[in-house]
Amino acid sequence: MIRFGKYPDRTIAELAGPAVLQALAEAGATPRDINAAYTGSMYGGTSVGQRILKTLDLTGIPIVNVENACSSSSTALREAWIAVGAGIYDTAMVIGVDQLSVLPRGPLPLARDDLEVRQGMIMPALYAMRARRHMQEYGTTIGQLARVSVKNHHNGALNPHAQYQMEVSLDEVAASRPVADPLTLLHSCPTGDGAAAVIIAASKVAKRFTRKPAKIVASVLTSGRFMAHDRDMTSPEVSVRAAAEAYEMAGLGPADISVAEVHDAFTIAEIMYYEALGFCGRGEGGRFVDSGATELGGQIPVNPSGGLLAKGHPPGATGVAQVAEVWWELQGAAGPRQVENAKVGLTHCTGGGVSGLDHAACTIHILAV
Amino acid sequence: MIRFGKYPDRTIAELAGPAVLQALAEAGATPRDINAAYTGSMYGGTSVGQRILKTLDLTGIPIVNVENACSSSSTALREAWIAVGAGIYDTAMVIGVDQLSVLPRGPLPLARDDLEVRQGMIMPALYAMRARRHMQEYGTTIGQLARVSVKNHHNGALNPHAQYQMEVSLDEVAASRPVADPLTLLHSCPTGDGAAAVIIAASKVAKRFTRKPAKIVASVLTSGRFMAHDRDMTSPEVSVRAAAEAYEMAGLGPADISVAEVHDAFTIAEIMYYEALGFCGRGEGGRFVDSGATELGGQIPVNPSGGLLAKGHPPGATGVAQVAEVWWELQGAAGPRQVENAKVGLTHCTGGGVSGLDHAACTIHILAV
Repeated sequence: MIRFGKYPDRTIAELAGPAVLQALAEAGATPRDINAAYTGSMYGGTSVGQRILKTLDLTGIPIVNVENACSSSSTALREAWIAVGAGIYDTAMVIGVDQLSVLPRGPLPLARDDLEVRQGMIMPALYAMRARRHMQEYGTTIGQLARVSVKNHHNGALNPHAQYQMEVSLDEVAASRPVADPLTLLHSCPTGDGAAAVIIAASKVAKRFTRKPAKIVASVLTSGRFMAHDRDMTSPEVSVRAAAEAYEMAGLGPADISVAEVHDAFTIAEIMYYEALGFCGRGEGGRFVDSGATELGGQIPVNPSGGLLAKGHPPGATGVAQVAEVWWELQGAAGPRQVENAKVGLTHCTGGGVSGLDHAACTIHILAV
Repeated sequence: MIRFGKYPDRTIAELAGPAVLQALAEAGATPRDINAAYTGSMYGGTSVGQRILKTLDLTGIPIVNVENACSSSSTALREAWIAVGAGIYDTAMVIGVDQLSVLPRGPLPLARDDLEVRQGMIMPALYAMRARRHMQEYGTTIGQLARVSVKNHHNGALNPHAQYQMEVSLDEVAASRPVADPLTLLHSCPTGDGAAAVIIAASKVAKRFTRKPAKIVASVLTSGRFMAHDRDMTSPEVSVRAAAEAYEMAGLGPADISVAEVHDAFTIAEIMYYEALGFCGRGEGGRFVDSGATELGGQIPVNPSGGLLAKGHPPGATGVAQVAEVWWELQGAAGPRQVENAKVGLTHCTGGGVSGLDHAACTIHILAV
């Protein structure tokens, strides 16, 4: 993956090309080794994969572009996993990319379709309401929420791919500018540009590309069932359902997970996902982060990459970037942010706020070495 | 499918909903029978499938949005076919949709990525050059090209789903306003809005939904290898390659095809696709249409629906609409445009002109009863 940031002067091919080349290089692969490509992007526009791959001698092969809001490239990964698992391809390149810095400013035209978005239920507002409700129901404090930001910025400062590589203090989180009460800027992920790429391969050929393959033992995609006003704001139902499916598919449980990358678009989101993924009990997320359990060296390190809060969140890039981080962790190649003895990694990606559903798409992947 | 046309006042859900409901009704299916949904759209924007399905009680299931230019929904169909074939789902709803009437006018911002498009190589210009070259190389005449438009408008006049249900004469084609010499307006497909939906099912459950299943015996996706200036303008290389793969997968040849829907974005395109699909020899496409071979009642009826030229071409909708037409033909349910004794149908969809490749994506499906 490339370092996430602001790259308004690059074409989409210039943005994603280096990630694709790095994936090929780490796998010791050439373009001829790649049977198909799947690209995930939310705002990349038509033929985004083709526009990237034409410059990299990766043409002629089947190329599929997938859009599923923040889960675009994690959905692309799942599509590639289905096709490789079905024997259609031996290998597939999966690319995540987005470039928010070149988008026109202002609301998405799609908002006209969505009753709640028209009323102002944009992401920061939605998560602020979730935070308030979690605080009321479970006694979660704003200081506990801020601990998520402090932890993830600490991790991001150790990650050369992170958009923001700086520590922040609890006081700085509290004092940063308001976004949607009680959330301030440092409770919120940034916008930006980025790209990431991974190669998946059938078991029979994987050893050609790595000495230590990571097996995808679960790949799950769900969509929301309700509009936000219809449901319990403190429980991300679409993630709870995806987690249950993923653990069943993998034959594993929360206690088996060594490391997780979760969709911390706002601090409250990470708290809710601890609970949804079973890392702690319902309502206990605030106390859980306060305990240090999800820090590097803790019981279950979450977002060693810095997460969306520090690493950044070009939406289409995030899903594959999470998988890249887990890959490096499982290889023991994560440098100063390495989780010791990482054997099983989980990635969780969810989003889609103008869909008229609480979430348009939630994906969970579990990888094991 | 809905009748293609201009529907600027509908939301995308209002545009596509009737097609989804019709597919359910024809299959005698309820939303609970559908395990997953794949949506293909070029311009539908984020979470297009979710925005359609939320109003139809088709939520909670995996939803994947696919973009591949004019081949968006045919690529979505292929993804669904892979997943159902792999046993991931028993059934999937595949939706194609686009609404060009609500797009801002003017060039796509993507053109900045593409050397050739920046120089003016937009679709009408590209096909005009192909026409001129075909005329020079093979003695094809403008009158032969016009026969494609006359034939497809004749068929469209028999199709209640067609955007333009009117006959046109050779003289009217020649006299319509110039677009890109030698192509006039009636050599060119219209813009418009539309939606189509099909349900695919695993063999073991298909009989629940129809007495006469059509089996997908080939599903192929290719991408272009060259920029337009690099190659022979008279041969659509990406389609030639896809056709060879599709016939091999199906164990069939051109002589086995009863009916075909091909991507006649311009009259010259249909001529070139006769040759690419092996319906006639290289360079013979002009004389082939002149012979009447591709008319209803001819040797191999092509575009009984009216094709893109008459039925219309909301790009994301086209791939699934072609499959819907072939489905009705194979069921003997195509009314006045019925091809007699139709047993094997082929759909061919290709496009992607701002990708920097000659074509971003070409799909071919062969269905057999």
